[in-house]
Amino acid sequence: MFSPEPIGYVRSPYQNAQQVPKGLGATHEAEGVLEILPELEAGLTDIEGFSHLIVLWVFDRSAGFELLGTPPSDNRPHGVFATRSPRRPNPIGFTVVELLRREGRLLHVRGVDMLEGTPLLDIKPYLSSTPMETLKRGWLAEAEARHEKK
Amino acid sequence: MFSPEPIGYVRSPYQNAQQVPKGLGATHEAEGVLEILPELEAGLTDIEGFSHLIVLWVFDRSAGFELLGTPPSDNRPHGVFATRSPRRPNPIGFTVVELLRREGRLLHVRGVDMLEGTPLLDIKPYLSSTPMETLKRGWLAEAEARHEKK
Repeated sequence: MFSPEPIGYVRSPYQNAQQVPKGLGATHEAEGVLEILPELEAGLTDIEGFSHLIVLWVFDRSAGFELLGTPPSDNRPHGVFATRSPRRPNPIGFTVVELLRREGRLLHVRGVDMLEGTPLLDIKPYLSSTPMETLKRGWLAEAEARHEKK
Repeated sequence: MFSPEPIGYVRSPYQNAQQVPKGLGATHEAEGVLEILPELEAGLTDIEGFSHLIVLWVFDRSAGFELLGTPPSDNRPHGVFATRSPRRPNPIGFTVVELLRREGRLLHVRGVDMLEGTPLLDIKPYLSSTPMETLKRGWLAEAEARHEKK
């Protein structure tokens, strides 16, 4: 394995998890900044050309994990690997953000759902090749359907 | 930070990196198995409903990192965070696979680009909300355009 080291930190309007929109219909329009360490800035070369980025980060304010949990989007429990729960065996978060602009080692982005100060693990270009019409969304689609019926 | 622990291992037809399709036009149709540790099997509950999964894994046969590198899909160097290079500050790989079927703690999937025995870090449901027509693909789109002109 390896020893994770932060490549930088998130500047976010959210100070605690209660402030992050969650559950069915939650949208992530918040703007924030991915601040990369000065010594890694060269790694951002040419990132400006991509509209969307994959961001991997650490759930650093979450402890332990649970194999079954009830997410904010449903009232039924699901396996941790079928949810985006923070209480995971490896507490790694995944977010796709829209890159608004780059200022040196600062990436201004839209769509943050991380908390202020969250350590960043990695940034990768987002290159979807999965057409949305082929996606099946499992229990989440069912929870949405139940919600709409109300 | 945290100490990464494998949640399982990849069963892949690829024994070494040379066998994995790379570069422009490479497609990932290979079938493989994500074998989850017995003690974590409950975490897979309800995963059958999703057609596509995000898989996070370790580039365990890659050492060190380089901030600028020339990927197989281009003849020009780009920053590591603008590529999917294995030589990253945190050697975490990202793959979207199609879930073909589940057999207990074995997930049969299509689209593996990992090597046999690769340690798995996490599995999450894939829930794209980024329409493909809004994506800009930066240097990769340019490299593709140059390639098509030839």
